[in-house]
Amino acid sequence: MDKAKVRLFVEGRLGVGAAVTLNDRQAHYITTVMRLGQRAHIRLFNAENGEWLGRIDDAGRGHCLVTIEAQCRPARAEPGPALVFAPVKKDAIDFIVIKATELGAAALLPVWTRFTAVQRLNLERLRANAIEAAEQCGRLSVPVIAEPAPLTALIAGWGSGPALFVFDRDRGSPLKAVLPAAAEQAPPSPGLLIGPEGGLAPEELDALEALPFVTTVAMGPRTLRADTAALAALACWQAFAGDW
Amino acid sequence: MDKAKVRLFVEGRLGVGAAVTLNDRQAHYITTVMRLGQRAHIRLFNAENGEWLGRIDDAGRGHCLVTIEAQCRPARAEPGPALVFAPVKKDAIDFIVIKATELGAAALLPVWTRFTAVQRLNLERLRANAIEAAEQCGRLSVPVIAEPAPLTALIAGWGSGPALFVFDRDRGSPLKAVLPAAAEQAPPSPGLLIGPEGGLAPEELDALEALPFVTTVAMGPRTLRADTAALAALACWQAFAGDW
Repeated sequence: MDKAKVRLFVEGRLGVGAAVTLNDRQAHYITTVMRLGQRAHIRLFNAENGEWLGRIDDAGRGHCLVTIEAQCRPARAEPGPALVFAPVKKDAIDFIVIKATELGAAALLPVWTRFTAVQRLNLERLRANAIEAAEQCGRLSVPVIAEPAPLTALIAGWGSGPALFVFDRDRGSPLKAVLPAAAEQAPPSPGLLIGPEGGLAPEELDALEALPFVTTVAMGPRTLRADTAALAALACWQAFAGDW
Repeated sequence: MDKAKVRLFVEGRLGVGAAVTLNDRQAHYITTVMRLGQRAHIRLFNAENGEWLGRIDDAGRGHCLVTIEAQCRPARAEPGPALVFAPVKKDAIDFIVIKATELGAAALLPVWTRFTAVQRLNLERLRANAIEAAEQCGRLSVPVIAEPAPLTALIAGWGSGPALFVFDRDRGSPLKAVLPAAAEQAPPSPGLLIGPEGGLAPEELDALEALPFVTTVAMGPRTLRADTAALAALACWQAFAGDW
């Protein structure tokens, strides 16, 4: 593996000469998984400062100090859709966060809906998954993960915000009828809303369909699990209206 | 849950009056997970006979006998793309099989490529995953899972078969340029080929691109894991040229 193939997300300011102390997970990854030591090069990045080449100055059990040497990529905006999703069980939600990060979601907005069976959400775990996925897929940014909110509160706060596409098995227009038109209007970063296992309740769908910024979209003849639907919606958006 | 919401795939002939003995996994699911007993109704299906309503006549530890009462859905063809994929590690391959089934793949064709890191494939496990996913998503058919073959052998045997779309990060046309034209030609069931982690080797891509039935397709600026790429390719195909 190329010595500078390892990419790690860091929150602190990055610039030539900066000394960066990696966190425990990253230090473990560098020393134990990748077996890198002093003088090896890695890349560090964040959305504000871009991506930088750094040299390991000191590494050992649980600690790793890196000095920044040069910039590899400047900072740039990474717009993308916001995925609005009902929390699902652990494996499926890990999957949603990882895949949504790879597929370029800019934000992940968990919502409580009538049929949401899961009742708690470990935001720290979701954020750790998003960071690792961003490190591996080449993004500069990590998607923002919001505190979960009731669907009604999210909608009330959406205001005159961007378009919101609501994916449902039984209602709405086919994706191929909706996306080309949406792509021409080039909305900055729409919301893509996926319900829980069991779908949105009819009254939730009714309320959503009454809103001027909502378009309901159908996803074919089979019953998709919530995580499959989330990723399918994101992939289709990126392919037809996004950055692919 | 609706008493006839449980759907199980069975290989034997289904028809009014037929007595069906469920296999161990299914009997366990009926009795222990769903806690259904005598006189409860379930649905049984396969691609050849369609979907049927059955009544449980006898159920106990590890066994379940069902008598077919009536047909719910006639048999019908379920054409769909063939997913050609390089085996990846266990969780990711389970994921590929389950999601590809939900997304309507008609066949799963594992191929060995130059950078394929995994060396064995548990076809029985893959098939069990495909059956469970078919049971949950409402399909009548279970995707065919082929024995793994070297990429060269698969290509040699493709003959004048259907179109083969090869997904790669760095080469090819964007999906949105390729799919609408493909949809108009309505190819029966194309192949969608996804490489392993690390991608296809340049010489593999060169050889593929020289074939008249191959179109290479690019998948955007981020590095997608193989399982993400497989799901994204299938979702986009179904949304824009398939059955959504």
